[in-house]
Amino acid sequence: MQVTVGKLAETIDGKVIGNSQELIDRPSKIEEATRGSISFVAQEKYIPYINSTTASAYIVSNKLDLSAYPDKTFIIVDDVYASIATLLEAYSPRSEGTGISENAAVDPSATIGENVSIGPFTVIEKGATVGDNVIIEGQCFLGAYANVGSGTTIHSGSRIYTKCEIGNDCIIHSNTVIGSDGFGFAKLEDGSYKKIPQVGIVRIEDRVEIGAGCTLDRATMGETLIMEGAKLDNLIHVAHNVSIGKNTVIAAQVGIAGSTKIGNNCMIGGQAGIVGHLEIADGTIFQAKSGMTKSVKKTGTKWYGYPAIEYNNYLRSFAVFKNLPQLNTKLNQLEKKVKNLDGNSQA
Amino acid sequence: MQVTVGKLAETIDGKVIGNSQELIDRPSKIEEATRGSISFVAQEKYIPYINSTTASAYIVSNKLDLSAYPDKTFIIVDDVYASIATLLEAYSPRSEGTGISENAAVDPSATIGENVSIGPFTVIEKGATVGDNVIIEGQCFLGAYANVGSGTTIHSGSRIYTKCEIGNDCIIHSNTVIGSDGFGFAKLEDGSYKKIPQVGIVRIEDRVEIGAGCTLDRATMGETLIMEGAKLDNLIHVAHNVSIGKNTVIAAQVGIAGSTKIGNNCMIGGQAGIVGHLEIADGTIFQAKSGMTKSVKKTGTKWYGYPAIEYNNYLRSFAVFKNLPQLNTKLNQLEKKVKNLDGNSQA
Amino acid sequence: MQVTVGKLAETIDGKVIGNSQELIDRPSKIEEATRGSISFVAQEKYIPYINSTTASAYIVSNKLDLSAYPDKTFIIVDDVYASIATLLEAYSPRSEGTGISENAAVDPSATIGENVSIGPFTVIEKGATVGDNVIIEGQCFLGAYANVGSGTTIHSGSRIYTKCEIGNDCIIHSNTVIGSDGFGFAKLEDGSYKKIPQVGIVRIEDRVEIGAGCTLDRATMGETLIMEGAKLDNLIHVAHNVSIGKNTVIAAQVGIAGSTKIGNNCMIGGQAGIVGHLEIADGTIFQAKSGMTKSVKKTGTKWYGYPAIEYNNYLRSFAVFKNLPQLNTKLNQLEKKVKNLDGNSQA
Repeated sequence: MQVTVGKLAETIDGKVIGNSQELIDRPSKIEEATRGSISFVAQEKYIPYINSTTASAYIVSNKLDLSAYPDKTFIIVDDVYASIATLLEAYSPRSEGTGISENAAVDPSATIGENVSIGPFTVIEKGATVGDNVIIEGQCFLGAYANVGSGTTIHSGSRIYTKCEIGNDCIIHSNTVIGSDGFGFAKLEDGSYKKIPQVGIVRIEDRVEIGAGCTLDRATMGETLIMEGAKLDNLIHVAHNVSIGKNTVIAAQVGIAGSTKIGNNCMIGGQAGIVGHLEIADGTIFQAKSGMTKSVKKTGTKWYGYPAIEYNNYLRSFAVFKNLPQLNTKLNQLEKKVKNLDGNSQA
Repeated sequence: MQVTVGKLAETIDGKVIGNSQELIDRPSKIEEATRGSISFVAQEKYIPYINSTTASAYIVSNKLDLSAYPDKTFIIVDDVYASIATLLEAYSPRSEGTGISENAAVDPSATIGENVSIGPFTVIEKGATVGDNVIIEGQCFLGAYANVGSGTTIHSGSRIYTKCEIGNDCIIHSNTVIGSDGFGFAKLEDGSYKKIPQVGIVRIEDRVEIGAGCTLDRATMGETLIMEGAKLDNLIHVAHNVSIGKNTVIAAQVGIAGSTKIGNNCMIGGQAGIVGHLEIADGTIFQAKSGMTKSVKKTGTKWYGYPAIEYNNYLRSFAVFKNLPQLNTKLNQLEKKVKNLDGNSQA
Repeated sequence: MQVTVGKLAETIDGKVIGNSQELIDRPSKIEEATRGSISFVAQEKYIPYINSTTASAYIVSNKLDLSAYPDKTFIIVDDVYASIATLLEAYSPRSEGTGISENAAVDPSATIGENVSIGPFTVIEKGATVGDNVIIEGQCFLGAYANVGSGTTIHSGSRIYTKCEIGNDCIIHSNTVIGSDGFGFAKLEDGSYKKIPQVGIVRIEDRVEIGAGCTLDRATMGETLIMEGAKLDNLIHVAHNVSIGKNTVIAAQVGIAGSTKIGNNCMIGGQAGIVGHLEIADGTIFQAKSGMTKSVKKTGTKWYGYPAIEYNNYLRSFAVFKNLPQLNTKLNQLEKKVKNLDGNSQA
């Protein structure tokens, strides 16, 4: 692409300050911005880079004071992140479908929509349904009677097991497994375990994105559910019968144990773990690596620690924890002093 | 399936209270139980659902008092979980074999048993052996001279590397890697690392189930060993030369470092980590997210924390941790008071 | 192999004490060493096994006093680990290439070097480049315009996405994903999220080894970078725009959040997590399971805990943590005592 700043500004509904005829051929992070690139300032700490770099234009918030940069070109927008998303989308369109590979193994009883792309060595089993405009890359597995909604992209090496349902406009990244058996066993008297067959499904609603290398287990009975707009990062484990609410965002390597219900608009930091059979209210935030062991009833609270307690309480306790050796010494000295005082007063 | 309660009761050796002619067409979780379904009560907290739902029958323990539900139909059993396992198994049989796909790449020198199913785009290398009644789904990799016992199921995308051995009646879930190289390097003087080739294997005994997305590394020399009946959940890492005992159960995202030996009948909670070169006694329990740094000699102990200490000790210490700010304040006030007393006594 | 001790000693530049004509047919761990095997002692705690086992020879450090073992055969070397690496390498060569499988789907526009092996059901997309002496096992995915340097091995089921670059002499283990989308979204006013397209790449320099089941996300813009000689274990998550320095070693299940820069020669223990936008100095060590939340400027420091603090400080604080119940009791008793004293002094 080579395009003027003015044209880009139109795409993102922004206002140009400076030279709208500057030519742009790539986006770049501001630390690496050089002539020909368009960059952006979305956080205050990156403001100093405006002076030290030579991007041909900077996308900035309408709150930034530009008077210090008379020689620079800017596009002013309301929401910098949303503008970048729009811009990159415009100039890096979804890959075109390439049709159904002759090397794919598609069962004749599967229903395939219009304008579908299925890559080489992908397996689609009997009775599966694939909506319009779906891209299934090479080497994927779509089990019997599974269902993929329209506009969805499934990346190479993902496995979607029998009867599971993926909504519209979802993205499933590479090597993710949806619908593997839940981890359920009945302990027998001799100490061995008998498998409890997992006969439920996983259902994923519309506009969900799931990262690479995740595992989402099918329900024992009923369904494991990811509601619309939820975003999951990589290597996340979702156990059987879990439910994750709308627009909830989950960072990498989180694990959620069986039957827990996560509300809408929650944010879960990386490597957090949530035990089974909990109910987590809407808008709950878990700090990275938290270990949550109880339900949350009030909306909008924030948690931290192992086991997790309220965020501010953890911070305060941890501040003392760091000084425990000194606290301990102080206590011992005080004890001695009191012993002396006691001796004196009894003398 | 549509079957009477009486017939189901026979399958699980239970006794019917109520109408044994009720027709059942599906199992369901008790929270979602409606007419036509059979449900179950395995934990006390689910008892109230008997009144609020309309399942056509409930499987319950012989310890439950049923006098409060004169209009409901029950099947009474000794062990609710084991009965569910039996019931679901009876009505959701293992998928039938479909023979060897013409799209599989099976080396002519491989030995394939009777009634084996091998899915499309699976690779079976030279000298590999596959026992009777094995199902290997599509897109799996079975390396040279690897060995899979009879009755085992290997799900799509799993990789079993050269010379590794899988026992009878095992289940390996999707995208799991067995026999990748252990993480072994010799540090050289210039700070770089020289790879130590990993020439051992992974050996998995009978009736082991391993979840999706796990990685079990081959031994440097000798073998990494998973003993019979062990059950591993998803995304678990097992390093080189680890050994895991019989009927040990490991929840998702656990990591076990090199050469550690875990005993029989242990239970390891999700996201726990166990450092290398330890010996863990039979029956040890690790709470989720624990970080274990030392060997356990006594059987049947329970651990918690980071680093892990005995479970009850961690609970007691953490109870004080939560009040550390108050404890700190109290100590400071006491210090002042003592200073005053000291001043007074010296006045 | 069956070879004399003398011959093996030449390979690793060692000196034989004892019978250089002993015949060796396998390496073994010292705990399992029997006649015919060569074993080694790399840590002090394994010294007692010299007496209790019957290996035909032991590789030992020149620091070990051998006078207690007059009947044993030894090969004395400077660096035991490096010698093992050399020895195993000599006797377990890299698997031979088998040429390009007729079942691979290689786009005609891809550039394939000399002596390349490409396994069955591997996909190589348009414009990709594969250097000389590369082994790409079966069922791998190499996206459009991706680039693999010479001498590199890519194991079964790995996915390398469009435009990513892998250096020379790298090893990528099974089911690892390189170049999946970074986790980037702009939050909209209605609480939903808009995807920020990830248009950067992953670049991996020479002699890097990456374990099984890892996910390395492509940069939003620019590159996610793994520098030469870095070694990553299994199930590791590397987020967009992260950079990992030369010869840095990272154990299994570590997660590194977006834009964090890790220095050279760092060591990161298993399951550690590092938050985004940090800079970590060369030679930093993180204890397993640490949760790092701030940048490290000084080289060669060691960290532990959640959140991580300096290693020794964490140890000291945790030592008091374990005794918090007793400390709390002591404080309460002291408080009573002071109350009494105060009462007395005011009486």
